[in-house]
Amino acid sequence: MSSFSDRLAQLVEKRGTPVLVGLDPRWERLPQDFIRDIESGDPVAQAIAVQRFCHGVIDVVAPLVAAVKPQLAFFEQLGPAGMQALADVIRYAHQQGLLVILDGKRNDIGSTAAGYADAYLGATSAWGGDALTVSPYLGEDSLQPFVDVAVQRDAGIFVLVKTSNPGGGDFQDLVADGETVYRRVAHRVEALAAKTASDCGYGAVGAVVGATYPEQLAELRKLMPHAWLLVPGFGAQGAAAADVVDAFDEKGLGAVINASRSIIFAHNRPEFRDRFRHDQWQQAVELATREMIEQLS
Amino acid sequence: MSSFSDRLAQLVEKRGTPVLVGLDPRWERLPQDFIRDIESGDPVAQAIAVQRFCHGVIDVVAPLVAAVKPQLAFFEQLGPAGMQALADVIRYAHQQGLLVILDGKRNDIGSTAAGYADAYLGATSAWGGDALTVSPYLGEDSLQPFVDVAVQRDAGIFVLVKTSNPGGGDFQDLVADGETVYRRVAHRVEALAAKTASDCGYGAVGAVVGATYPEQLAELRKLMPHAWLLVPGFGAQGAAAADVVDAFDEKGLGAVINASRSIIFAHNRPEFRDRFRHDQWQQAVELATREMIEQLS
Repeated sequence: MSSFSDRLAQLVEKRGTPVLVGLDPRWERLPQDFIRDIESGDPVAQAIAVQRFCHGVIDVVAPLVAAVKPQLAFFEQLGPAGMQALADVIRYAHQQGLLVILDGKRNDIGSTAAGYADAYLGATSAWGGDALTVSPYLGEDSLQPFVDVAVQRDAGIFVLVKTSNPGGGDFQDLVADGETVYRRVAHRVEALAAKTASDCGYGAVGAVVGATYPEQLAELRKLMPHAWLLVPGFGAQGAAAADVVDAFDEKGLGAVINASRSIIFAHNRPEFRDRFRHDQWQQAVELATREMIEQLS
Repeated sequence: MSSFSDRLAQLVEKRGTPVLVGLDPRWERLPQDFIRDIESGDPVAQAIAVQRFCHGVIDVVAPLVAAVKPQLAFFEQLGPAGMQALADVIRYAHQQGLLVILDGKRNDIGSTAAGYADAYLGATSAWGGDALTVSPYLGEDSLQPFVDVAVQRDAGIFVLVKTSNPGGGDFQDLVADGETVYRRVAHRVEALAAKTASDCGYGAVGAVVGATYPEQLAELRKLMPHAWLLVPGFGAQGAAAADVVDAFDEKGLGAVINASRSIIFAHNRPEFRDRFRHDQWQQAVELATREMIEQLS
């Protein structure tokens, strides 16, 4: 198997788009078809409904994009049955040819970090993601076990550098010795990315950089020439195509742009609500995906 | 029900010790009795072995301490069956009168943070912890959903402030405008703790502060008078009783001191190995717990 980084580069080029579809199956927003199972209060029925919904999204987006990004919180919210559904959704996405980036923002100190890396990327992982998002607050020695497992397993990690939320700056934007905390994190990420770079020029370690801060996105693209950028914040969070143009290298590679709600819950968007019946939610997903691909092309 | 903070204060006073037992059931270190299930490679058998082991630890420590702290990574490592085992371990700990602090170091932006809070502390949570550890890198707006759920549910959160690992200082110790990042986080934690303070004087929001940095522990105790401190790093990570003395207020309250490996895997400690047969591992757990209680008394 080739490295995660090369596989991502190949699939992004093959599909001709950097769009990444976030699977955030908030149970309270699922289309009407799923309501009965959700309202049953039975966690197994709820988890199966979420699983069916994710399959439905995957069926639509698999021919169009390179990867999906399940948000672990919404599977954990459904308990152990939700975690079983997550395993099934990952398997199904792989069968349909998609890469799977697990959004779990995990971390802990050394040997516990190794436990998380093993849980989500390891050889005997029940989930077996292609990549995992990781939080940097505990420092570089907490990142290393994830890097080790990622390299062994041809997987990847994306370290939070600059997040897309309004409060993201509270600690990330603090300036120490003339440099922001997020730049300090970025330097470490770049070092790890350069050390693990494969054929495509990017490494096993990437960075999460919000689309809602276009200037920092440009700054961070330059600062981390070997790091894939995972860019959330497009769509429902307000960022548009012009905001993410600087995330890419001169070949148009090096970044994947995530949208979650605006794609998977497209049937709820005001401009789509009158165009699609509730049982046509997959058509709304397809149109939203195609529109985003068009906007970013 | 009274607040998490008051329940913790009452139980710490009743047991007469701030010892917190960390449940880090690394499968490769379980006593010999469990090896066959672990080596079976069957995830359900492995998860049941971990569950049985945790029950065995709980049976010993429940009369002695106020709370246990399951480390989620080691349950997630066993897949959905491990997450089911976690639910069972939490239920059993509650039955035995223990409080349960879930060590998951979760976080994400706003509405996803709400998903995590709901998953581990919410009304329909499959796990239903009394408290959850949370990472601060995403800023204060990412903490608020956890605070909201914690207050609604008489639960608590512990925010990472200063961690016990060697690399903890990489970003936490950076100095911005004359103040370290960890102090900046501490100010936010104190504000949230003061706002949610209950009868015992402490709030629903506490802080994780490593025992391996005694000076910062003293500094942070003063800086966060309304925050419970969860202090890891005792025992296997090298800190001793003298290192944590400043974690407490003048009444001897306000902190819980965690040990994991040195208690639950006491049968592997060189000084215990000759005293207990492998089937006497629970006696080793008991002696290690009593020794730590004595050291901290």
